[in-house]
Amino acid sequence: MAAPILCARDLQFMLYELFDAESLIQRPRYADHSVETFNAAIDTAQSIAEKYFVPIRKKVDEQPPTFDGKNVYMIPEIKVAVDAATKAGFVSSTADFELGGMQLPPMVASVANAYLTAAASTTTGYLALSNANANLIANHGSAEQIETWVKPIRVGRFAGTMAMTEPGSGSGLADLTTTAAPAEDGTYRIRGSKIFISGGEHELNENIVHLVLARIKGAPAGVKGISLFIVPKILVNADGSLGELNDVALAGLFHKMGGRGQTSTALSFGENDGAVGYLVGEENCGLTYMFHMMNEARVMVGTGAACLALTGYQYSLDYARERPQGRLPSCKDPSSAPVSIIEHADVRRMLLAQKAYAEGAFALCMFGAQLADDKDTEQTEEARHTAHTLLDFLTPIIKTWPSEYGPKANDLAIQVLGGHGYINEHPVEMFYRDNRLNPIHEGTTGIQSLDLLGRKLPMNNMAGYRAFLALVRGTIDEAKTGELSATAERLAAAVATLETTTEHLLGAMMAKPIDLVMANSVKYLEVFGHVVIAWLWLRQGLVAQKGMAAKPHETDQQFYAGKLQAMKYFFNFELPLIEVWSKNLLDLDATFYEMNNNWF
Amino acid sequence: MAAPILCARDLQFMLYELFDAESLIQRPRYADHSVETFNAAIDTAQSIAEKYFVPIRKKVDEQPPTFDGKNVYMIPEIKVAVDAATKAGFVSSTADFELGGMQLPPMVASVANAYLTAAASTTTGYLALSNANANLIANHGSAEQIETWVKPIRVGRFAGTMAMTEPGSGSGLADLTTTAAPAEDGTYRIRGSKIFISGGEHELNENIVHLVLARIKGAPAGVKGISLFIVPKILVNADGSLGELNDVALAGLFHKMGGRGQTSTALSFGENDGAVGYLVGEENCGLTYMFHMMNEARVMVGTGAACLALTGYQYSLDYARERPQGRLPSCKDPSSAPVSIIEHADVRRMLLAQKAYAEGAFALCMFGAQLADDKDTEQTEEARHTAHTLLDFLTPIIKTWPSEYGPKANDLAIQVLGGHGYINEHPVEMFYRDNRLNPIHEGTTGIQSLDLLGRKLPMNNMAGYRAFLALVRGTIDEAKTGELSATAERLAAAVATLETTTEHLLGAMMAKPIDLVMANSVKYLEVFGHVVIAWLWLRQGLVAQKGMAAKPHETDQQFYAGKLQAMKYFFNFELPLIEVWSKNLLDLDATFYEMNNNWF
Repeated sequence: MAAPILCARDLQFMLYELFDAESLIQRPRYADHSVETFNAAIDTAQSIAEKYFVPIRKKVDEQPPTFDGKNVYMIPEIKVAVDAATKAGFVSSTADFELGGMQLPPMVASVANAYLTAAASTTTGYLALSNANANLIANHGSAEQIETWVKPIRVGRFAGTMAMTEPGSGSGLADLTTTAAPAEDGTYRIRGSKIFISGGEHELNENIVHLVLARIKGAPAGVKGISLFIVPKILVNADGSLGELNDVALAGLFHKMGGRGQTSTALSFGENDGAVGYLVGEENCGLTYMFHMMNEARVMVGTGAACLALTGYQYSLDYARERPQGRLPSCKDPSSAPVSIIEHADVRRMLLAQKAYAEGAFALCMFGAQLADDKDTEQTEEARHTAHTLLDFLTPIIKTWPSEYGPKANDLAIQVLGGHGYINEHPVEMFYRDNRLNPIHEGTTGIQSLDLLGRKLPMNNMAGYRAFLALVRGTIDEAKTGELSATAERLAAAVATLETTTEHLLGAMMAKPIDLVMANSVKYLEVFGHVVIAWLWLRQGLVAQKGMAAKPHETDQQFYAGKLQAMKYFFNFELPLIEVWSKNLLDLDATFYEMNNNWF
Repeated sequence: MAAPILCARDLQFMLYELFDAESLIQRPRYADHSVETFNAAIDTAQSIAEKYFVPIRKKVDEQPPTFDGKNVYMIPEIKVAVDAATKAGFVSSTADFELGGMQLPPMVASVANAYLTAAASTTTGYLALSNANANLIANHGSAEQIETWVKPIRVGRFAGTMAMTEPGSGSGLADLTTTAAPAEDGTYRIRGSKIFISGGEHELNENIVHLVLARIKGAPAGVKGISLFIVPKILVNADGSLGELNDVALAGLFHKMGGRGQTSTALSFGENDGAVGYLVGEENCGLTYMFHMMNEARVMVGTGAACLALTGYQYSLDYARERPQGRLPSCKDPSSAPVSIIEHADVRRMLLAQKAYAEGAFALCMFGAQLADDKDTEQTEEARHTAHTLLDFLTPIIKTWPSEYGPKANDLAIQVLGGHGYINEHPVEMFYRDNRLNPIHEGTTGIQSLDLLGRKLPMNNMAGYRAFLALVRGTIDEAKTGELSATAERLAAAVATLETTTEHLLGAMMAKPIDLVMANSVKYLEVFGHVVIAWLWLRQGLVAQKGMAAKPHETDQQFYAGKLQAMKYFFNFELPLIEVWSKNLLDLDATFYEMNNNWF
């Protein structure tokens, strides 16, 4: 039996037991849905993943797209697979019915997309980016722009990208130099170079809609002078038909460590007459709009990282059960049969750590999806506002924790397979390579940490931070009288450490050089991330406890026991690390701050 | 200016300031050597690395060897480079003059080889394996075998491999099934399949000498029934000329995540009449002999991992100095010029961590090389014995710590480069992929940890453990009255933690199920490894303190300040982690042990 892409039982647990997706049916937006339609969408995604994506993943990795100076070539199986997913609606699973979408709750879409992402993390990136691009234009574009660009994306005719990074500036968006010159017809002429544009060129769709950040002449310096433009690969006529090629050229493809299913491109805008661009919204507000897409993309990156961790875990688990090798330390009889490697405690360590990382990370991303839903569809204004505040606050953690611990999980999957994990007969080394991009793109771990400590934490009188603590206290209260009271106490102690650390850092921001206070910001995100994941593991533990009492069937009992053991792993081996990291923060450790560049 | 392969100043520090290689000239074996001859060998290696290996490393990675069912093809530049290194003597740098070697001290050879390994970790693997193969035969083979096989290897005519792993058993050598049947002429006929044989087939040399583990019919079960055989690719006539092809067939090549310069092969022995094999030493003692090679290979693996960490650090350091991007948190002026990314404290964090990991790991491997030398060339029998005891004891740590932290360093190098680190325009993602094999081959981290806790620790009444503690106490005594007294105290506290933990585990071995005690053995190796590296950082700190007082030149002052800061990093951010890990061990945490296979 081949390893499952994902554990269906766990996804059902996440969706219905942990996050109660069934209750969403009560909300007007989901009135036409039911548990049956939710599960049907998930089953469809699973079928497409199994039929189209898993069989080609090795070939996609071995034969990445090529560019001969004129055209991009990729193996035809990619288009077949992408078309199948598009046809089934997965380019617009959460979009409105009237725009051609499935109008699924984000949590359900996350579970369905998890199959596609786990089976082909970067190939399905074409769909995910197109979706996020259309969401941005739908929110900030004009009615005409929605008609021209969003509708064709929703039905899979057009694809979408985001074009921010430039060769000279990377994460430093303030320094971007692409220009936009107003033309007489109200459009703009865009000129400049962009790099690392995922899906920037391909022939999977009729057209590609680039969302490009550029400066209009005379705009203020820095991030306050950036505007956002729609710059299509092919211009579109008034009747919606395709017109002339726009002045957008592919300068080259990047050769990536992983994620080879998706082109990563260098694009030259306007080398001839200037690329025609259409301003989105107001001038100089481009970065604000782009953050609409970027925040969505950040949650998407975290979710992708979690999905790769989940699938690597399933693969190595299957291998560990099937592969006989060696004997236990207690066995002194060399003529006895070798045991399956899962019998070795250290292999179980590597599996349990993967489970704790992967399922913890995925639970966090599901929580993010719940918040993204609640901020729009919760019943009261207050509840919507709280969800929005929490999502804003937690986005750096939702992006980063899975991106950091997902590759760690995949690294353990390689190690479980040993030498077999290092060769491409098995996909685990590819999972690792695919996942390694996630701590980099859509804002590196360093950028996310500065965002958390320097911006999200103090924002709005610490509303996000306070809202999060209130949630955690609720869970601790719920757990502290039951069988998990000791675990609840440990979480309460961890929260106390987090609070002490946070207050100390906020105080230091007033009294010390800000560059010193920010020097250990990655450590702060690590502490915070571990507390968040521990909280989600306690929540999973609570649900598992209830499940054990309610469902006597052996497979349920085993499933819940596994959840409780993964929780135990996280609390025994991971959570205590925050005391060490927190000490570095409380000391305002200046090791990095003081390190002189000439001392290296 | 391109990034240097390695930091020459640091290598001189390691060799002459930290480990006093100059004093070796007093030993009879090195009487013909001088600091000049040592440095000449190092300079030669650096030149060869720069001229032949660095320029081809990207091409080697992109165009790995192929097999058409009959022959193996590789780009011709590999042979040119390997020949240059061979001609310069680097296949036998430590071997006796009379066998064609350079008779260099292992420490000096380590530094010279570091250039080759850092520039082409796996391409130079051909040389390193050949050398280790010849060393084994030189130690355990007959005079005739030495004449026939060792001499041609020493001059680069023949290559050598080690052939242990089989498809069905992997790390479980006890279960290997390759057979050896005695022939009438005193040789044996070998039949069986071996996998993951590095350098198992290629045309870089006239012949390949496989050292093959096999069972003679009727041998005892398990590891006590394994014999070792020389099985050449081509039989050699009595006059030393090449004769018939032996019955050794290449079944296929593995496609690896990294390390693509070296073929990894599946070999079939004796599919026709049986491959001719020559018994090395006594029957059923094969594993003992193989451990001669394997222990050497384990130190070699650790050293290779450290070298890749060092070169990734140099590369990312160079990039961080050159690349302008972003502004400091304290800068509010968007029109100010972007700073070099090394100005960002978090980038310095990633560089300093790399420095601490890489230079700590390399210092450990240099210490291993010193012990390997001392066990043969120290003046007194007692000193030789102590060196042997220490090397035996520390081998699992010398193999594992660099193999675990080397890839972590390379991972940080990728992160320093951001998106540019993920593409093959820069070599850092390749360093990571090359390095990822090291925690797997020559005994995984799990295997090394069982070896440390279950075998090396209790061995000979804990002689290795005691000898190590005595060394560390000597350093603490030396440091405790000077400027590093606080650091010495922290190391003393860490040693106390290590001792408490060790005693607790030894006690538990008497009282508890051995499978439970061994379940957290990887944590024990982590604790021990961090104490060893902290000790080596304190030693580096002491030398740096003295250097600062003695050498007022600015570049020296800066270099030593960097050493002290890296030491500070290790003591502030890494060493405290052992308290968490040690607690897991003191608790005899049963999370993995108790995890039921059906709960996953």
